[in-house]
Amino acid sequence: MKAGCPYGTHRVLNAKHGKFPQAASKLDNHMEIYDNELLIDVEMLNIDAASFRQIREEANDDKEKMAETILKIVNSRGKMHNPVTDSGGVLMGTVKQVGENFTKNIKPGEKIVTLVSLSLTPLKIEKIYDVIPEKEQVLISGQAILFQSGIYAKLTEDLSLDFVLSVLDVAGAPAQTRKITKEGDTVFIIGSGGKSGMLCLCAARKQVGSAGKVIGLAYSAADYQRTVASGLANHVIQGDARNPLEILEKVKAVTQNRLADVSINCANVGGTEMASIITTKEGGTVYFFNMATKFTAAALGAEGIGKDVNLLIGNGYTKGHVEVALGLANELRKKGLF
Amino acid sequence: MKAGCPYGTHRVLNAKHGKFPQAASKLDNHMEIYDNELLIDVEMLNIDAASFRQIREEANDDKEKMAETILKIVNSRGKMHNPVTDSGGVLMGTVKQVGENFTKNIKPGEKIVTLVSLSLTPLKIEKIYDVIPEKEQVLISGQAILFQSGIYAKLTEDLSLDFVLSVLDVAGAPAQTRKITKEGDTVFIIGSGGKSGMLCLCAARKQVGSAGKVIGLAYSAADYQRTVASGLANHVIQGDARNPLEILEKVKAVTQNRLADVSINCANVGGTEMASIITTKEGGTVYFFNMATKFTAAALGAEGIGKDVNLLIGNGYTKGHVEVALGLANELRKKGLF
Ligand SMILES: NC(=O)c1ccc[n+]([C@@H]2O[C@H](COP(=O)([O-])OP(=O)(O)OC[C@H]3O[C@@H](n4cnc5c(N)ncnc54)[C@H](OP(=O)(O)O)[C@@H]3O)[C@@H](O)[C@H]2O)c1
Ligand SMILES: NC(=O)c1ccc[n+]([C@@H]2O[C@H](COP(=O)([O-])OP(=O)(O)OC[C@H]3O[C@@H](n4cnc5c(N)ncnc54)[C@H](OP(=O)(O)O)[C@@H]3O)[C@@H](O)[C@H]2O)c1
Repeated sequence: MKAGCPYGTHRVLNAKHGKFPQAASKLDNHMEIYDNELLIDVEMLNIDAASFRQIREEANDDKEKMAETILKIVNSRGKMHNPVTDSGGVLMGTVKQVGENFTKNIKPGEKIVTLVSLSLTPLKIEKIYDVIPEKEQVLISGQAILFQSGIYAKLTEDLSLDFVLSVLDVAGAPAQTRKITKEGDTVFIIGSGGKSGMLCLCAARKQVGSAGKVIGLAYSAADYQRTVASGLANHVIQGDARNPLEILEKVKAVTQNRLADVSINCANVGGTEMASIITTKEGGTVYFFNMATKFTAAALGAEGIGKDVNLLIGNGYTKGHVEVALGLANELRKKGLF
Repeated sequence: MKAGCPYGTHRVLNAKHGKFPQAASKLDNHMEIYDNELLIDVEMLNIDAASFRQIREEANDDKEKMAETILKIVNSRGKMHNPVTDSGGVLMGTVKQVGENFTKNIKPGEKIVTLVSLSLTPLKIEKIYDVIPEKEQVLISGQAILFQSGIYAKLTEDLSLDFVLSVLDVAGAPAQTRKITKEGDTVFIIGSGGKSGMLCLCAARKQVGSAGKVIGLAYSAADYQRTVASGLANHVIQGDARNPLEILEKVKAVTQNRLADVSINCANVGGTEMASIITTKEGGTVYFFNMATKFTAAALGAEGIGKDVNLLIGNGYTKGHVEVALGLANELRKKGLF
């Protein structure tokens, strides 16, 4: 077996400057593995929410067309890296072969979910069987490569595959929420009825305790109902996070003008940076988990209103995130909320 | 006078969703002020480094063409908001008129530098007199509007205008550096020979003390010399931040493989996210001041290599940033380093 780079740079095609696989326009997806790679027989892709929404809207909800788009992206890029949203998702499959220098404890036959983005994972699709819009999932047969530095979770029998898959896709958010919130905080969660939103709501509730306050922002009536029904939020607001002034007034109303210590953006649409910033106290923190966030809109937007807040990019990985997310999601599942 | 919104939303044209001025494609730049606005006679624009570089490269260094591009942007958008880099800069001028409800302490005739981005400042250019590439400055006659929430600094006699202007453009960086570094830290500064880089180098040096370590990364030979000559860095590396593996090896070499507690990205080019992330310790912090940073490249890049680091978006504003930046720049100026 040939020796590979732990970060997978040996699979990067047509790129100068020693680019990393995520930044590359194209990856080498031949399925003969290097010494430190894992070969996976892929059964299912769980596409990132922002990417899935874009593909669905462009295809006018036509499943055939969505499948075509997905095939086209993977055939041309060697990975399921949506060029419009620049995001990926995760996959589920069975380990087929383990490189002789792949140092983690795993054997052929084990079922895993990869925890690194599809936007950096070499992938080959043989056939697409179905696209399931409600779950943002795609059933396929194909193969993928995991690099030495890539992370994954093993699947066990007691949890349904698609449950685990959709939790793991957003696993970074609740664990980060736990890190950046504390007892007594007021936490504002944008997109509280969505998958990551609901997990963050749950994480925040535990952190802030009875002295703290959790506020949810839901866009649709269904999300509003779900957030209310969860019993996890002190206040639930309904509104459009692309309208910062409207949201500001509503957050002021439920915080006696004090605003939030931490705002967490879990929406899946762009243009929501200002609503996140303007609802946060001076010295507070804004956590952008939403992949449709624009760097410049956040940096210059905060400066533009002279607001001294910490602006955090939602790193998809943090230590122990899988355990945290699966634990919270299991609680929610038992209440019918996930 | 008509009543305006403190954030200037009353000047936003053709936008749904109550957009803020920075996000708007076009601003209303008529120069009859609202009750809470400031009217400024503009003498000089200091264009953001990423924006200036893009305009200069597109114009092949031709000053006439650069002036044309700038006029075209301002005429079509009502603000100097570069559509390619999505960034602005700051301006210098004299207060002409103060709205009756503008609550800050300022009078007509006072010279100011605005501290909010040109990407959200209504601007009208009558004439461009000169473009000064070395300083990223444009001499003009024109008028601009500052909103109630906008921040500015008054100019005094003892410091040259263009000195103050170029310090203020990057004033957020050194003050943020002070906030996120502490005694004993190892701090890695990418683009250490540039304006913000040199200020961060100076701020970090003071914070980390003799137990800490400051490492500079310079791209050109001139920047390398300047960083070495400053005497502020324990180690100076020369290299291209678009090549993460090369930079990683060099940072490992000078930190005995320990990497940096804090990495600060002050480069003015894209594709430098991974070099910033990969050189930072687990649990450390990456501060992206560079406006060419891509949100998804940072978020998915860190996840892609399973790296648990805090990723901070460089908010251009933080309390006291003007005083901090001018203080440090003055020290550097006396040593001929700014
Ligand atoms: N940083 C990372 O590593 C990472 C990893 C995975 C995913 N993500 C990102 O995280 C985000 C959320 O993912 P998810 O799986 O939780 O998505 P999701 O389940 O689709 O939830 C998104 C939520 O946002 C709400 N929303 C949509 N438009 C809104 C608006 N204008 N104002 C307020 N709320 C609005 C949606 O409400 P409706 O249902 O009513 O439309 C929904 O509740 C996505 O952008 C995704 O790309 C990031
Ligand atoms: N967040 C905010 O609010 C805010 C406000 C203002 C500015 N900014 C941003 O901050 C950044 C720096 O601004 P500045 O005024 O300090 O710029 P600057 O003075 O032009 O410095 C940029 C530095 O980056 C170096 N560089 C260029 N390519 C590089 C590479 N491939 N690897 C390593 N270093 C490289 C340059 O080196 P050479 O000279 O050798 O090319 C230079 O030293 C810009 O991106 C600007 O847009 C942000």
